[in-house]
Amino acid sequence: MILTMDINQKRLWRTLMELAEIGGTSPIDVHGVTRLSLTKTELRARQYVIDLMKDSGLSVQVDAVGNIIGKLEGTDLELPSVMTGSHIDSVPHGGRFDGTLGVLGAIEAVRTMKEAGIKLKHSIEIVSFTDEEGARFGAGFIGSKGMAGELTETTFSLADDKGVTYREAFLAANLNPTLYKQAIRSDEQIKAYIEMHIEQGKVLEEHDLSIGIVTDIQGPVWLDVTLEGAADHAGATPMDMRKDAGLAMAEVLLAVEAISKEHQGVGTVGKMSIEPGGVNIIPGRACFSVDLRHIRKERRQHMVDDLHEQVEAICNQRGVTYNIDVKKEVEPATCSHEMVGLIDEVCTELNIRAMKMPCGAGHDALIMSKLAPIGMIFIRSKQGISHSPKEWSDAEDCKKGTQVLLHTLMKLAQ
Amino acid sequence: MILTMDINQKRLWRTLMELAEIGGTSPIDVHGVTRLSLTKTELRARQYVIDLMKDSGLSVQVDAVGNIIGKLEGTDLELPSVMTGSHIDSVPHGGRFDGTLGVLGAIEAVRTMKEAGIKLKHSIEIVSFTDEEGARFGAGFIGSKGMAGELTETTFSLADDKGVTYREAFLAANLNPTLYKQAIRSDEQIKAYIEMHIEQGKVLEEHDLSIGIVTDIQGPVWLDVTLEGAADHAGATPMDMRKDAGLAMAEVLLAVEAISKEHQGVGTVGKMSIEPGGVNIIPGRACFSVDLRHIRKERRQHMVDDLHEQVEAICNQRGVTYNIDVKKEVEPATCSHEMVGLIDEVCTELNIRAMKMPCGAGHDALIMSKLAPIGMIFIRSKQGISHSPKEWSDAEDCKKGTQVLLHTLMKLAQ
Repeated sequence: MILTMDINQKRLWRTLMELAEIGGTSPIDVHGVTRLSLTKTELRARQYVIDLMKDSGLSVQVDAVGNIIGKLEGTDLELPSVMTGSHIDSVPHGGRFDGTLGVLGAIEAVRTMKEAGIKLKHSIEIVSFTDEEGARFGAGFIGSKGMAGELTETTFSLADDKGVTYREAFLAANLNPTLYKQAIRSDEQIKAYIEMHIEQGKVLEEHDLSIGIVTDIQGPVWLDVTLEGAADHAGATPMDMRKDAGLAMAEVLLAVEAISKEHQGVGTVGKMSIEPGGVNIIPGRACFSVDLRHIRKERRQHMVDDLHEQVEAICNQRGVTYNIDVKKEVEPATCSHEMVGLIDEVCTELNIRAMKMPCGAGHDALIMSKLAPIGMIFIRSKQGISHSPKEWSDAEDCKKGTQVLLHTLMKLAQ
Repeated sequence: MILTMDINQKRLWRTLMELAEIGGTSPIDVHGVTRLSLTKTELRARQYVIDLMKDSGLSVQVDAVGNIIGKLEGTDLELPSVMTGSHIDSVPHGGRFDGTLGVLGAIEAVRTMKEAGIKLKHSIEIVSFTDEEGARFGAGFIGSKGMAGELTETTFSLADDKGVTYREAFLAANLNPTLYKQAIRSDEQIKAYIEMHIEQGKVLEEHDLSIGIVTDIQGPVWLDVTLEGAADHAGATPMDMRKDAGLAMAEVLLAVEAISKEHQGVGTVGKMSIEPGGVNIIPGRACFSVDLRHIRKERRQHMVDDLHEQVEAICNQRGVTYNIDVKKEVEPATCSHEMVGLIDEVCTELNIRAMKMPCGAGHDALIMSKLAPIGMIFIRSKQGISHSPKEWSDAEDCKKGTQVLLHTLMKLAQ
């Protein structure tokens, strides 16, 4: 079979660049895009997506947790929907493609179908999920968790760096935080979920391929660690009389690295602060995040256990006390064999070379695996750089991925 | 000889506690005193000191760099002044005694003399020096440097965390930054400088003594270190493909500790930040301060040289670039034999046991050693804790130190 329908590459690229302007500081490859969830900037970006969905002939609804859902109705409304999408919130100084490609690519794919007058039995729903990154409140996947029934009341008490709670951010976006359960969908309503996303790694680039077909998704554990020592004078306290929380933190950072290497997972400390923070005061307190990931849940638990053990040993040695809170724990997921097979089939038919690969980053697809069989299409990232102003994917690769998405959606929905 | 004149212990204590209320957050032993130089809070504290000096019968002037100078005139105005004092600015969440005891104790001592109708040949000048701590702009000893002619134009371009420059802070305090050289004093105008200060260490406590007589003062070097790596995705970047500026910083922190121990000096990283600062982003940039101290200048230079060498090795290993700026460099100083002998004599006459000891912290006395012979009286600090809300010295120890100061000043000025 030869698949001939083509998406509009120029139009897709234009929408990617237009959306990047919202929250982007020029030059974007230096300052990047800062579009933290439910900020005024991100609310403007949401309106852009809503308008684009409407222009593309979709009916649009915003659900109780703020997910934007654009629907192309199928001919048989009794059948479950085929769902696709991603997110448009970013990390601080992030890139132009992370999340947005999955949303804008899906809109372009469905618009192409509609323009070609294609009729499909199943409805297609494109979702722009709320707060995938978790960069503002420290807990991500909010929209997909809301849809999968995995969101809990406690989330709304989380506060951002300025002390604004999730509850307040919801209200400011005209969302009622008490109604969040109304966003829950039944697994009977969703036939499959497919997400296109940039790889955010260098594997495709090293294999000189545009497209990857994801087989498994790592789930992250996020920990908050607090160390308490004594804030003494930097000059008058001999080295052996100190309880320096900053030095204990330094040792834990290096332990996170060693543990991650040992278990062949990944581990990162991306956020840290010390108090009181004077040049001539020994740090009395250190707070930092730890992000640990592995493709196998048991192995990841070993990483967490090893970290606890080492934090204990380091702190005992230095006379420092500690506390470790789990802020987020997402189970790794496996993509359905059928979806992997279907995407592979489409790539063959489109004559696009692709490779099967695991996924190192967490995605909404991970949460959606609770509700439906999932599949993921990866697009090559230049130098593997992501969550950075320098994040880049070529227009041709974005087009190829969107073509694969288009024809996979058609096969699923026909 | 028996010295009989006593200071008013209750009055001294009351002024210490009143001054702590300005910038102190109740309970002060939890939240401490935050009185950063030239902030609105510190300007209120300055007014308190000015009023107290006037109430004590001193003539008060504020010099061109904001030093508050209260003068008790001697009978022979041709003779050089005997100078004493300290500072009233604090670090963030600092204590009630650091600096303030030297200013308020001096005022109490001179007030006692005045009330007793004592006439002295030399004038006594009490100085509350501007910005000893350097906690706001990253460079301290501003007032004493201004007086000793060691202040430079570039200082006024330094900015605090909010971007306010020193120039702007001066103007907001009704000081003209272009006139800073008018604060310079000649060494012919000053017979001696003597400073009372809390020890900020545990040596006196361990020896069960109220009073220490300082023999040498360590001078600090302050460095600003910036490390640049790559801000990649925490999930999709394998451990061996990372350029993590946070991990490089962790290694440097431990190197600072090892170098300090090796050279029998002290070294501290009290201020640090990483960027971009997202939980799921590898730190692309790390900035931190390094404070290195030693009683011998050559030995301290070895510490700095070793640090450069190790930063270079760590950064090469991790594919990270670095920059090291010297922000402050103060020469260690030796107290004059005459002053040490005089303080020792007063202690004996007052029947107060005291020990001679080196000083680990930097003080205005260090800078004043350029202008005059210096001496320092140390007061026991509870548990050696300082630059902390828990900083404490007993009222009885504060009284003893002030008695020693009173009689030393009288011997110098008679």
